[in-house]
Amino acid sequence: MRDLTVKDVDLILQTARSLKEISYRPIKKVPTLRGKQVLLCFFEDSTRTRLSFDIACKRLSADTAVISKSGSSISKGETILDTIRNLAAMQADVIVIRHKESGVPWAVAEVFPNISVINAGDGMHEHPSQALLDLMTIQDTKGGIDGLNVTIAGDIFHSRVARSNMILLRKMGAKVHIAAPKTFLPADIEQYKVTVHDNLTDAVKVSDVVMMLRIQMERMDSFFFPSAREYSKYFGLNKEVMKHAKPDVVVMHPGPVNRGLEMDPEVADGPHSVILDQVENGVAVRMALVYLLCAGHVSE
Amino acid sequence: MRDLTVKDVDLILQTARSLKEISYRPIKKVPTLRGKQVLLCFFEDSTRTRLSFDIACKRLSADTAVISKSGSSISKGETILDTIRNLAAMQADVIVIRHKESGVPWAVAEVFPNISVINAGDGMHEHPSQALLDLMTIQDTKGGIDGLNVTIAGDIFHSRVARSNMILLRKMGAKVHIAAPKTFLPADIEQYKVTVHDNLTDAVKVSDVVMMLRIQMERMDSFFFPSAREYSKYFGLNKEVMKHAKPDVVVMHPGPVNRGLEMDPEVADGPHSVILDQVENGVAVRMALVYLLCAGHVSE
Amino acid sequence: MRDLTVKDVDLILQTARSLKEISYRPIKKVPTLRGKQVLLCFFEDSTRTRLSFDIACKRLSADTAVISKSGSSISKGETILDTIRNLAAMQADVIVIRHKESGVPWAVAEVFPNISVINAGDGMHEHPSQALLDLMTIQDTKGGIDGLNVTIAGDIFHSRVARSNMILLRKMGAKVHIAAPKTFLPADIEQYKVTVHDNLTDAVKVSDVVMMLRIQMERMDSFFFPSAREYSKYFGLNKEVMKHAKPDVVVMHPGPVNRGLEMDPEVADGPHSVILDQVENGVAVRMALVYLLCAGHVSE
Repeated sequence: MRDLTVKDVDLILQTARSLKEISYRPIKKVPTLRGKQVLLCFFEDSTRTRLSFDIACKRLSADTAVISKSGSSISKGETILDTIRNLAAMQADVIVIRHKESGVPWAVAEVFPNISVINAGDGMHEHPSQALLDLMTIQDTKGGIDGLNVTIAGDIFHSRVARSNMILLRKMGAKVHIAAPKTFLPADIEQYKVTVHDNLTDAVKVSDVVMMLRIQMERMDSFFFPSAREYSKYFGLNKEVMKHAKPDVVVMHPGPVNRGLEMDPEVADGPHSVILDQVENGVAVRMALVYLLCAGHVSE
Repeated sequence: MRDLTVKDVDLILQTARSLKEISYRPIKKVPTLRGKQVLLCFFEDSTRTRLSFDIACKRLSADTAVISKSGSSISKGETILDTIRNLAAMQADVIVIRHKESGVPWAVAEVFPNISVINAGDGMHEHPSQALLDLMTIQDTKGGIDGLNVTIAGDIFHSRVARSNMILLRKMGAKVHIAAPKTFLPADIEQYKVTVHDNLTDAVKVSDVVMMLRIQMERMDSFFFPSAREYSKYFGLNKEVMKHAKPDVVVMHPGPVNRGLEMDPEVADGPHSVILDQVENGVAVRMALVYLLCAGHVSE
Repeated sequence: MRDLTVKDVDLILQTARSLKEISYRPIKKVPTLRGKQVLLCFFEDSTRTRLSFDIACKRLSADTAVISKSGSSISKGETILDTIRNLAAMQADVIVIRHKESGVPWAVAEVFPNISVINAGDGMHEHPSQALLDLMTIQDTKGGIDGLNVTIAGDIFHSRVARSNMILLRKMGAKVHIAAPKTFLPADIEQYKVTVHDNLTDAVKVSDVVMMLRIQMERMDSFFFPSAREYSKYFGLNKEVMKHAKPDVVVMHPGPVNRGLEMDPEVADGPHSVILDQVENGVAVRMALVYLLCAGHVSE
C-alpha cells in the first residue's frame, strides 16, 4: 500500500467500478483475459480471498490454478523463490501470493521484476486488496473519503488489514482513529498518525465509519487480554455502543465475523452494516487488479 | 426428496436424458451455462459426487470453484451461514453442499431464498441426486418403475442414500423392500411403508432391482453387528444369493463398493450389475439439476 | 519408456516443439481440445508436475479436474481400479496418474484398454514425461543427442527420473554415465548398460550433459550415506567440480533443488544451467502427450 500513489488507487477503483457490473449480468463473463494464466498461491488457509480472486479471474476468462500449502513441493522443503521461479517458467501472467511470513510477496516481486505479483495477505504486514475494497465500499456508501473519520477497532497489532487500511485511508485524506486495548497496539503506532482511543464508545462517537477487526481467538490469552467476555464488554460493537454512533455511520468487517465477540449479530446484519458490500466489491477490485496487471497499466 | 412432486422428478429425468448424449460427443461441451458460477462446497470427503458435479458443470460451460473443509475459513470457526452469505455476495448462481450435519443444505436454502442450493448429501438425512440417478438407471434398464419390487439392503440406519431412495421410489410407484439386520434399521422405519426382511435371500427372491448399500467399516462393531465375516454371510450379495434372483434382476450400488463385504466382485462386475450406468447417469442428472436451477424451471 | 519406439519419441517431441510457441503468445490458448476432459489423479504430493499438466491442458482448452489423496474416496478404502472405473464412466478422455506404488498407471492401462493413461510418476519405477522433457531440453541445447555423454548423478536407487532417463537416453543413442555412492545404485544397474563412476568429478570430465538428481533428505541415514555434508563433498555439483567440466557442458536438475546439497546455488543459477528450460519444455511435452492421446495418434 505504501508505494501506490493516489492516482494508482483512483485508477484501480475506477476500473473496479466499471468491471463490477459484469457480476450482475445473466452471463457473468467477458473474454477480456482469455488465454491469461493466473496462479493462486495460497500458502496460508483462506476461503474468501482465494475464492474472490478465483471468481474475479474467471469473470474475465483468465485461467486459474491453485497452489496450496498441503500437497505442494513446499512440503518437500523447496524454497518459495524456487517455487516461484518454476511458476514463472511455466509462463504465468500473474501470481497471487498469500503467505504467513511478512514480506514474501514483496521479495518475490523484487527477485522477479518481470512477473506480476499480487499480495493477498502476508503475515502481519499488509493485505492491500482488502484495503482497496474497503476504500471502494466507503467511497460508494459515503460519496467520498476525504475528511471522513474512520475508526479501526480491535487487534491492530496482529492485523495486516489494519496496517494496509491505516496507510491507505490516510493517503486518501481520511482521519484515522484506533480503538484497542494497549496490548493490541503495535509499538510503532505513532508512525501511522492516527488518534488512539482506549475504549470503543469514544471512537464511535466521532466516526463516520467503524471498521471492526476479527479477533483471533487463539490470541485471547492473559498476555493480550484477560478474557473473551471482558474484551467483548469493552471493545465489542453492540447495540449499546451503536446508540452513541452518528445516524448515518457505516459499519464494516473484513470477515469472518466472530458473532458476539467483536460484533453482535444485530449489528453485523443491521442497517448500518456494509459487510456484504465489501465482499461484492472484493470481486470487483480483484478483477481490476488482475486486469490492469495483464494489460500492463500499473507496474506493481 | 420429500418436497419434489412426481412432475418435478419427471422434468429432471427428462432433462437428464436429453443432456446425457453431450457426454458421448467428441466435443463433450455445450455453451448453455457459460458465465454461470457454481460453487461446490464439500465440507465432507468425496471424490465421485464432487467430480460428478464438477464434470456436469463443465459439460454445460459453467464455471466451478471447490470449497473444501480443509483450507477454508470453516477452520477459522466461521459459521456455515456466514460462509454461504459470503459466497452469495460473490454472485454465485448455484451452491452445491455436502455436509456431515443433517439439514445444513435445507437450512441454507431457508435462510437464502434467492440462492439455488443443491443437497449433495447431508449427514444421515438425504442424498437426493443419488436417488434421482438411481431412479433414472432403473427406468432406463427396466423400462419403467411403477409396480417394480426394489430391495434396499444394508445399513439403512446410517444411510442417506437409503432414505432418499425409500421416499423417491415409493413416490414413483415402486414397492420397496428392506433387507437388514435389526440393528441397522432406523427406529422410524414404519413411516417409509416398506417391507422389512431379516435376510437378504428372501428379499432378493421377490425383487426386480437389488440396491446394496456401502457398509461403513468403522460402524462394524459389536453394537451393530458381530463381525464383517458374519455380516457378509447373511447380508452380502454373492453368487449363492443370486441363484434365488429373477433372471432379469438388476443389481445396483452407490459406490464405493466394499468388494467381498456387501457385494462379491463377480456380482459387482457381473451381467446384472448396472453400477457404472449409475455413475454415467449421475453426470447427466447433475447436468439437469444445475441447468434447471440456472434456467429457473424448478424452485428448489 | 520401455515400450516407446524412437519414432514415437520423435513424434512426441516434434509435436511438443510445434505446440511450445503457444505459451509465448499474448493469448496463450488454442481451442484444439475444447470439450475434452482430463483427470489429474495425484495420489502423491506434487506441485510442479500437476501444475505443468494442468497448464498444458488449459493451453489446449481441455477441461481438467484434480483428484488428490486427501479428500478422495481413496481414504474410504476404495481400490484404485474402482476409482478409475468410475472416472472412466464419467467419460474422461485422459487420466494422468501419479502414485507412490510402482506399476499403478501400467495396471490401470492394462485393465482399461479404452482409456488413455499418462504415467506422471509411479513409485521408484518411471517418470516418462520428465525423461521426455529432459531429452527435448538436451536436443534443443546441444543440437542433438546421438553420441553425447550424459551423466546422471545422485540417488539412482530411489529415482524414477533416473530409470526413465537411463532407458530413453540409451534408446536415443546417448552414452549414459552414472555417478553415485554404491549404496545409491540399484542391484540391477548392469541391465541399463551404463558406465558407473564412484565420484562425480570423473564423470563430469567426460560429460556433455550433467543431470543431478534430488536427494531425499529422509533417505540420508547411515545405511545409505553417512551425512549430508559428506554427500555434498563427494557428489555435490559445485564450482570446484565444474572446473573439470567441458566448457559447453549443460547442467540439469528435475527440481526441486536442494541448494547446497546436491547442487550449489551458483551452479543452479549459473550459465550452464538449463533447469528453467526443463520446466518450460515440461509444459510443451505435456501438451503434446495430451494432444496426441486425444487425437488418437499414439496408442499409449
